[in-house]
Amino acid sequence: MSLLDETRRRIPSPDAAVGAATQRLLDAKTKPRRSLGRLEDLACRFAAITGVERPPPPVKAIVVMAGDHGVAAEGVSAYPQAVTGQMLLNFARGGAAINVLARHADARVVVVDMGVAGFAPDPAEAAVREIVRRPVRAGTDNFARGAAMSREEAIHALETGIAVADELADRGVTLLGIGEMGIANTTAASALVAALTGARPEDVTGRGTGVDDPGLAHKIAVVRKALEVNRCDPGDPLAVLARLGGFEIAGLAGAILGGAARRVAVVVDGFISGAAALVASRLEPSVLPFLIAAHRSSEPGHGRILTELGLEPLLDLGLRLGEGTGAALAMSLVDAAVRVLHEMATFADAGVADSGA
Amino acid sequence: MSLLDETRRRIPSPDAAVGAATQRLLDAKTKPRRSLGRLEDLACRFAAITGVERPPPPVKAIVVMAGDHGVAAEGVSAYPQAVTGQMLLNFARGGAAINVLARHADARVVVVDMGVAGFAPDPAEAAVREIVRRPVRAGTDNFARGAAMSREEAIHALETGIAVADELADRGVTLLGIGEMGIANTTAASALVAALTGARPEDVTGRGTGVDDPGLAHKIAVVRKALEVNRCDPGDPLAVLARLGGFEIAGLAGAILGGAARRVAVVVDGFISGAAALVASRLEPSVLPFLIAAHRSSEPGHGRILTELGLEPLLDLGLRLGEGTGAALAMSLVDAAVRVLHEMATFADAGVADSGA
Repeated sequence: MSLLDETRRRIPSPDAAVGAATQRLLDAKTKPRRSLGRLEDLACRFAAITGVERPPPPVKAIVVMAGDHGVAAEGVSAYPQAVTGQMLLNFARGGAAINVLARHADARVVVVDMGVAGFAPDPAEAAVREIVRRPVRAGTDNFARGAAMSREEAIHALETGIAVADELADRGVTLLGIGEMGIANTTAASALVAALTGARPEDVTGRGTGVDDPGLAHKIAVVRKALEVNRCDPGDPLAVLARLGGFEIAGLAGAILGGAARRVAVVVDGFISGAAALVASRLEPSVLPFLIAAHRSSEPGHGRILTELGLEPLLDLGLRLGEGTGAALAMSLVDAAVRVLHEMATFADAGVADSGA
Repeated sequence: MSLLDETRRRIPSPDAAVGAATQRLLDAKTKPRRSLGRLEDLACRFAAITGVERPPPPVKAIVVMAGDHGVAAEGVSAYPQAVTGQMLLNFARGGAAINVLARHADARVVVVDMGVAGFAPDPAEAAVREIVRRPVRAGTDNFARGAAMSREEAIHALETGIAVADELADRGVTLLGIGEMGIANTTAASALVAALTGARPEDVTGRGTGVDDPGLAHKIAVVRKALEVNRCDPGDPLAVLARLGGFEIAGLAGAILGGAARRVAVVVDGFISGAAALVASRLEPSVLPFLIAAHRSSEPGHGRILTELGLEPLLDLGLRLGEGTGAALAMSLVDAAVRVLHEMATFADAGVADSGA
């Protein structure tokens, strides 16, 4: 059996009995029942996912996968393709937004090159050697003119993501953030969402890094053309991924599956990470209870993804940067929720009268 | 001139030019312009408030003020009045939710007894000696039968809060969280909001710590009676505060004014802290630009407060605990926003192409 199929079959169910036991622990704490709202839900979900009533504080990592997109040749981004590799270096050197917010959340950042065009950094630089180099190929083909990648390449990218998540689980990671970088990858995410959900291109295509009105109209036309050129069967999500996806998106879908198979809770960042989660959920619906939506992106297609996944995001801050930045902020909330389980006194401990309310 | 009047006159305007300079610093960072959404707004507001373009990371404290309420005698709470003092001890000993979340946010907790009934802890206990004892009196009078306190007591409580904030500013605090504890204080907050805004009691009265349906109907009736007994002129906010407020609510209104007068950014927690902010803004509208709304409480009256103050909360997590718990979570977001200013590379630093988008 392939690693992909084996991983899909290994994904367990979260342990509902453990989650219920965690809620009872919370109910004994010195506060009205359920008064910490969604923070309590987070603690219980993290417990049910990891299978431990009072789980240790999460060990956090954020996987940032980068890939280039042939469709960038259609002029769909405000930035040149070279920026993908430049930002990969910036991630490795610790200067990007995700580095700052991951440090703030006490999360490790793992940077993966899934296929960045012309990426040839100086190997003498120590930071560069920290980049996990797993390029499928130096960027996808232009999906406005044909398939982005072959079915075999899609499987390869998925299995690379599974292996990355598996290795992080081996090192003790229990909370995995999902982020990405890739010039033109909002175009890929829009095409994927349209193909998988039947949404109209104009309803799920946004400004990405900041195209203007004519740029947006052009981007929508490119997505429409991509859907026409690549007639996809939404019932074959692997084919949809291959035709309209990106190497980093496929890699993240794999990391999500691989994390779930290891009882790792997965915090999904924004629109593009959300598209990866949508792909993962179509490949294997049992992944859904392992997903935590970090935030509501200002990209219009993200709302559609959240509805499809049945997820309510934790934050709504108008973020549209990607990289896992929203995931980092949300992971800090999971951390806070779990700390309540460990550090708060019970009514009995503290000699506080309990109304049972 | 009284300390209250002097403080009101000392409140400056945030420095808009500084905020604009901070936005320019953010625009040079390696990310599309404005792609960190409200996190960028927070950085700019914190800069404008403190008057420093690239402000040092916030020094954070959360003031938790506790007071008892005569109206508890009407049976409006799910908990007995003794819980106020029991929780004050829990705060001092570090076992309450606010202690956990403040540690998570790296914020100091300052616990103030503004007037807790029968509070006589063992002074031999070191933790007890950390409580700032500033009781106006051992609980307010029952405002369903007359005024909660005298006008002089209201001024005294306000000035106590001003002094607490002033001392924290002296110690370098630049970001102040506002939280509270007081059995029956959602009833006081509902009465204040109704009196100050003209809202109907049934629209701004909720379940507090968790009263049932008959309990809620009774609580609404008590608020209605309080408004009839204490015919208040909303144009005289000090009188409204005296008749329907609480010592901790008045103290927090003072802390908000005192913080603003020292260019401290004030993160307002939920419903009761919000009522204190509403009182402060009616006493002195120039306090408004110093306020950051932490979260949207599940108490129905909180929405009315946020509308009145023109504030959009950062978080919407269904919290209804008070104590400053939502403020702690939101202060961590302010921290993250300011760290971006310090730690992120610019396009020039990182050799990343800038589209200007």
